[in-house]
Amino acid sequence: MKIRNLENIKAISGGICSVEGVDASGTRYGKYGVSIISNLDSNASAVFTSNKIKAAPIEYTEKIIKNGKLSLIIANSGNANCFTGKEGMDDCLKMVDFASQKLNIPPNLIATASTGVIGRKMPMDILLNLEEKSIKNLNHSSKSSTAFAKGIMTTDTVSKEFAVEVTLTNNQKVKIGGVTKGTGMIAPNMGTMLSFLVTDAKLSAEEINKSLKIAVDNSFNMIVVDGDESTNDIAILMANGKSNCNLVDNGKIDSNFQKGLNYLCQELAQMMVRDGEGASKFLEVTVKGAKSENDARNASKSVISSSLFKSAVFGGDPNWGRIAAAIGYSGVSMKQDKISISIKSKDLFTDLVKDGIPLAFDGSENLTIAEKIMENNEIEVIADLNIGEFEATSWGCDLTYDYVKINAEYTT
Amino acid sequence: MKIRNLENIKAISGGICSVEGVDASGTRYGKYGVSIISNLDSNASAVFTSNKIKAAPIEYTEKIIKNGKLSLIIANSGNANCFTGKEGMDDCLKMVDFASQKLNIPPNLIATASTGVIGRKMPMDILLNLEEKSIKNLNHSSKSSTAFAKGIMTTDTVSKEFAVEVTLTNNQKVKIGGVTKGTGMIAPNMGTMLSFLVTDAKLSAEEINKSLKIAVDNSFNMIVVDGDESTNDIAILMANGKSNCNLVDNGKIDSNFQKGLNYLCQELAQMMVRDGEGASKFLEVTVKGAKSENDARNASKSVISSSLFKSAVFGGDPNWGRIAAAIGYSGVSMKQDKISISIKSKDLFTDLVKDGIPLAFDGSENLTIAEKIMENNEIEVIADLNIGEFEATSWGCDLTYDYVKINAEYTT
Repeated sequence: MKIRNLENIKAISGGICSVEGVDASGTRYGKYGVSIISNLDSNASAVFTSNKIKAAPIEYTEKIIKNGKLSLIIANSGNANCFTGKEGMDDCLKMVDFASQKLNIPPNLIATASTGVIGRKMPMDILLNLEEKSIKNLNHSSKSSTAFAKGIMTTDTVSKEFAVEVTLTNNQKVKIGGVTKGTGMIAPNMGTMLSFLVTDAKLSAEEINKSLKIAVDNSFNMIVVDGDESTNDIAILMANGKSNCNLVDNGKIDSNFQKGLNYLCQELAQMMVRDGEGASKFLEVTVKGAKSENDARNASKSVISSSLFKSAVFGGDPNWGRIAAAIGYSGVSMKQDKISISIKSKDLFTDLVKDGIPLAFDGSENLTIAEKIMENNEIEVIADLNIGEFEATSWGCDLTYDYVKINAEYTT
Repeated sequence: MKIRNLENIKAISGGICSVEGVDASGTRYGKYGVSIISNLDSNASAVFTSNKIKAAPIEYTEKIIKNGKLSLIIANSGNANCFTGKEGMDDCLKMVDFASQKLNIPPNLIATASTGVIGRKMPMDILLNLEEKSIKNLNHSSKSSTAFAKGIMTTDTVSKEFAVEVTLTNNQKVKIGGVTKGTGMIAPNMGTMLSFLVTDAKLSAEEINKSLKIAVDNSFNMIVVDGDESTNDIAILMANGKSNCNLVDNGKIDSNFQKGLNYLCQELAQMMVRDGEGASKFLEVTVKGAKSENDARNASKSVISSSLFKSAVFGGDPNWGRIAAAIGYSGVSMKQDKISISIKSKDLFTDLVKDGIPLAFDGSENLTIAEKIMENNEIEVIADLNIGEFEATSWGCDLTYDYVKINAEYTT
């Protein structure tokens, strides 16, 4: 899914602090940072990495979020606190207890997240010092949202935040804000996608979970930089109810809210791939006409993950054979003589394959246009399997010398 | 599986022509080549790409090989004859008919294979001309085996052939020879892994199929260059029975024969990754102590496919966190506090993680040794999950600037 109609959704400034009741802060020292969100007595739910190697803060937060309530999130960068044994869990609890005492918030309402290098001891003196400063700096302002976003950066080259105002179907308005970090599904030395989302809508933890899963499936789960999955991934949504807008009717979440949350998450996800390690071009791959939603998703992700296709994009080569082959090995239902493939960028569009017949061959106008399209830095691929009703979109980037450079030159 | 004990197996020269009854030839013109194996009245079976986009020669050979008999194989390079519609199938049949008439062999005993660019018309005048020359050149000699291997090269930088003599459990001797081409699971502009294997052992088509599947699963299916799967992959084994050695006893294939075939295929597979696009280092990843064979295979292939780990190897970084993370997201059963990871190269060996405890940290001797190991160009990773009995080995190469260069610079 891709949001193509933005009716009832308006981008607004302020990041997570666009939402009333949310205080934020972030403090850095060299490669380390500690960022905090305070959002008292929110309902909350989260989705986590499916990697079987899990960082201590993931194990901790998975446990405490089961009660559906959250008041504070502490996130640190520079160290993933992963593969750190019992000492790692103790360090995680130390960060929780420190904030708990300073802010008088029960530990089981405090979530944690970490991003950085795996298998290294947490530098607790530095981190507790940063945490103390961030607690003091907690504040409701655009600046604080940005400070939070900066505090969790690792190999990110830009901070990433976004917010929307959604007009519900009953014409009431709610806000949703989010910050994220990450430059690959797992970044090079530093790992991890972290996303923190807040809303002033009224939602139970269960409703949040349902809505968040849909949004994540159509955004963070549809981006690929290198296909590696982190040990520390997390996306949390907190709903503090300050808008007093109840957006659940007959057990169904307001469709505009869901659309707004999907859109917010897609914007944040796209910020991540645009900032993908070494990326020089932004890719969007839509597969339609698939027999099932899973087929559409898998085919789309297979193309966006193909090292061969990603290299071709870097080289400006409209190599549709690599697109077709990636769909072919994705395992989805398809028929070679039904498939159509086209690409577009800005005001240019051309068919590469139509109903199984190649149109972009040497000397054809389609190939000339395709080559022009490939010179642009935002490229859209549309593959129509023509055998069903389902559609999915994924986002990614090209594979460049710089990806290899960034990931090769770091030394432990 | 990896063959660690070469008892009863001896490497011999001669490639496919080490086997009596096998004539071969190969002729090239620029980027095009046509290679032929004549091996009259052999029993034969093959395994094919699982890509749903299939080249015409794959569709054709899948059909005719069902009768279990083969006398001739025609393989061309330079054009994959894939996504070429009805015309592509006609071109495939033209190549078959041409040889059928010249050599007086029924068309249904002639297999075909193609490798090269996808979606382009076959240059039939060039190819039929090459085919005519190759038919004339058919010959039983080491030189002809090499000519065959050279005729099917695309982005390969070296030709690839190997042969073994196996002493069966009853002390009789049989030979198995093979040639292969391929520099990635799919090469950049040129695709495809092609492997042609011959033996003088006596085997039925059904027995060949069984034995070939085991060998392929433990060799060609365990190598990864870029994770892309070709539309044209094929491995064929022909058994002409000239040795008069029946190696099936009570329905079971002689274990030494199977070991010899596995070894031959592993050698050929390793030649492919050593010649992997842009590869500067050769990697072997063994996962042991897994709960099932599938788990061992999947975990091993997940590590060898990880762009992050491959980049780290290129950079000489013993980044074991990336190894652990790749096992973690492979979906296999594992426990973080049980896993051990070590690396070796030449006479150097060190533990990186032992029973879940990291040993290669800043300042440790293990890290110093690990860094020395990473300077070598053949590196072995051993990960022990310590929860079961199963083991698997995969082979691959690092991810380098040159991989990106080779795959980006080609323009259709």
